[in-house]
Amino acid sequence: MVQASIITIGDELLIGQTIDTNSAFIAQELNKLGIWVKRRIAIGDKREDILDALETESKECNIVIITGGLGPTADDITKPTLCEFFDAKIVVDEGALENVKNIFIRINRPLIERNLKQAEVPDKCTVLPNLRGTAPGMWFEKEGVVYASLPGVPHEMEGLMLNSVLPKLKEHFQMPAIVHKTLFTAGKGESEIAELLIEFENKLPEYIKLAYLPSFGMVKLRLTGKSNDQIQLEQEVSVFVNELKSIVSEWLVADEDISLQEALHQLLKQMNKTIATAESCTGGYIAHLITSVPGSSSVFNGGVVSYANEAKEAILGVQKATLEQFGAVSEQTVIEMSKGVLQKIKTTYGLATSGIMGPDGGTPEKPVGTVWIAVTNGVQTKTQKFQFRFDRKRNIQLAANAALNMMRLFILTGN
Amino acid sequence: MVQASIITIGDELLIGQTIDTNSAFIAQELNKLGIWVKRRIAIGDKREDILDALETESKECNIVIITGGLGPTADDITKPTLCEFFDAKIVVDEGALENVKNIFIRINRPLIERNLKQAEVPDKCTVLPNLRGTAPGMWFEKEGVVYASLPGVPHEMEGLMLNSVLPKLKEHFQMPAIVHKTLFTAGKGESEIAELLIEFENKLPEYIKLAYLPSFGMVKLRLTGKSNDQIQLEQEVSVFVNELKSIVSEWLVADEDISLQEALHQLLKQMNKTIATAESCTGGYIAHLITSVPGSSSVFNGGVVSYANEAKEAILGVQKATLEQFGAVSEQTVIEMSKGVLQKIKTTYGLATSGIMGPDGGTPEKPVGTVWIAVTNGVQTKTQKFQFRFDRKRNIQLAANAALNMMRLFILTGN
Repeated sequence: MVQASIITIGDELLIGQTIDTNSAFIAQELNKLGIWVKRRIAIGDKREDILDALETESKECNIVIITGGLGPTADDITKPTLCEFFDAKIVVDEGALENVKNIFIRINRPLIERNLKQAEVPDKCTVLPNLRGTAPGMWFEKEGVVYASLPGVPHEMEGLMLNSVLPKLKEHFQMPAIVHKTLFTAGKGESEIAELLIEFENKLPEYIKLAYLPSFGMVKLRLTGKSNDQIQLEQEVSVFVNELKSIVSEWLVADEDISLQEALHQLLKQMNKTIATAESCTGGYIAHLITSVPGSSSVFNGGVVSYANEAKEAILGVQKATLEQFGAVSEQTVIEMSKGVLQKIKTTYGLATSGIMGPDGGTPEKPVGTVWIAVTNGVQTKTQKFQFRFDRKRNIQLAANAALNMMRLFILTGN
Repeated sequence: MVQASIITIGDELLIGQTIDTNSAFIAQELNKLGIWVKRRIAIGDKREDILDALETESKECNIVIITGGLGPTADDITKPTLCEFFDAKIVVDEGALENVKNIFIRINRPLIERNLKQAEVPDKCTVLPNLRGTAPGMWFEKEGVVYASLPGVPHEMEGLMLNSVLPKLKEHFQMPAIVHKTLFTAGKGESEIAELLIEFENKLPEYIKLAYLPSFGMVKLRLTGKSNDQIQLEQEVSVFVNELKSIVSEWLVADEDISLQEALHQLLKQMNKTIATAESCTGGYIAHLITSVPGSSSVFNGGVVSYANEAKEAILGVQKATLEQFGAVSEQTVIEMSKGVLQKIKTTYGLATSGIMGPDGGTPEKPVGTVWIAVTNGVQTKTQKFQFRFDRKRNIQLAANAALNMMRLFILTGN
């Protein structure tokens, strides 16, 4: 089968200043085409290491995707090294030059020598136009192996992958049929789900694999089938998907690979309902997740981040007495918050969170990680207490997901 | 010098479902000790690939850090393969077993066979206790090379690195003196800054390097010096840092490696001032950034996510006439939003955003990426219009950073 290797170049990856999101995107897209990524490797801006990586990766793979080392301040090492590897020489590409000039006219910034150099490419490559930036992509072929060199800026790399590299790969290689199906569950742990699936996993044929993808209280179950008969494979996979669905039905959020906020968005949209948020401990993160979905204005009217008690009283009308008697982190307070926001921002549903995320602020009765969540439609209100045990960042993410899932279940079942 | 390689194991990395944040954390921590990460490599749960990686990486490096492949549902391949590589056999570690049992008592979930297996380790390793999870860390030494195998869960891996691996590495190796200094700038492009620093860079001695770390409208400039004379190196670096400071002073946010929200947090805390946010297009992301800083309740009282116009009127008291005449995305509206939130949530400063993040909602007059931002202290108000040109996610991040930086400058200079 067609195998690929991803080489990311840049000292910033080796000093850990940059988190490599490019490899994940590239791997996902190659995977969708049925191309298996055998290895991912990150190296510095160093001639020997780049040559060594190109040498070794091309031995075992049909495709080598290279990102990074092409920015205006990248040590100008990648292009000369590519010239060395492909026995080429640097030339100016007119199309790329035009592109650089146009971009600087558009953003109306001074065009300097450093930027013009971005239009230079090895003469052995096919230039892949970069519609989102100044550094062009480059496509090479050598001894049956295909190489694509792309800039490291994620936004630009993604455009080049989608517009140029993937279409060219489809032309160039004979791919097997591949079928991916993802079931999205929430509320049950990875190992507990795995226990339920032992029998199911044993029944899977060798060419259909199950992957567990856990994150923050959710587990995605992904079936991947590979064969040469697309139609038959799709039928087979769908049979297993249906069996899998019935096993995890109790925790099933969606039968596609979407986010929890996207699932909630779809649900609200279908039912033509709206939601408002009242956040204390999650500090606006839930509103951010909801509004990160394009078109969210059709289901989300707004929210309040009532961090201080004064804000809870002034905007949400939480009773001073409630705060004094039960405290900000209490069932009574989140109930009043959820009803308060519903009343203030006229929506179908209201959601409220209050907790202690740490590192400080915990007490013996209410340790760090204690979170109260309420969801309401104005008539019924459901509350739940959670106890998370991680750091601030992770507690916020877990609380947000717990709240979104509570809201989802409340809309579906009224409970 | 001491060189390290990071091997991350797991098919989820090769299908791109997981973004590898572990490598960045590990690289940063090793770097602080003066250990240079030569390569990072990601491979699947496959015996041959794991053996091959251990073989090749150990040839060129003194340290090999391995993460992943140790979860309850990880194909049980990593431990047997480590046994093979180190010529060891699997034994149950009593300490690790105790730890597993205690965790399941604490979270009060059923303890199953699958979890108990996590206490099994190769008999040739030193067990590194995992205080944050069930899978123990493992330390090996073979032919002068040190190996540490850690679970892939970031929170657990980080604990093991900080508590066990780094201290043991410090004991084990003779490190050179290393000095890092980061200057944090905002508001000027990477290549423009690079132009200003050509002379400066040429003056740097071979053993002091400058790295550019751009992200979302900010550029961090990092000087790294390595030598055997700590005191002399620190003096030298500080001389260059001061020169660098004076060159970029106009855009300097902080002389340490912190986030923009941390810089704003520190500033507000020093001046004993507070802030409130009124967000439309950024949808709560600014509030989230501010509240992601521990102790943020001392400077942040709360905020409003006034996504719908009704919310802008109902909570922030924006005039219907203003919205009708100038629209939600206008200077007049963000001014009223910023003053409204200040008046509603009694704080020193108010910040407001309104814009079109895309993909839809743009018009010829107000294309996608148009964002108005206002900052106010109730008396003076400053506004600015931005035009971003990226996707929804990136536009939100850029708008949030622009707003935080505008607030910071307004507090500092009143403008």
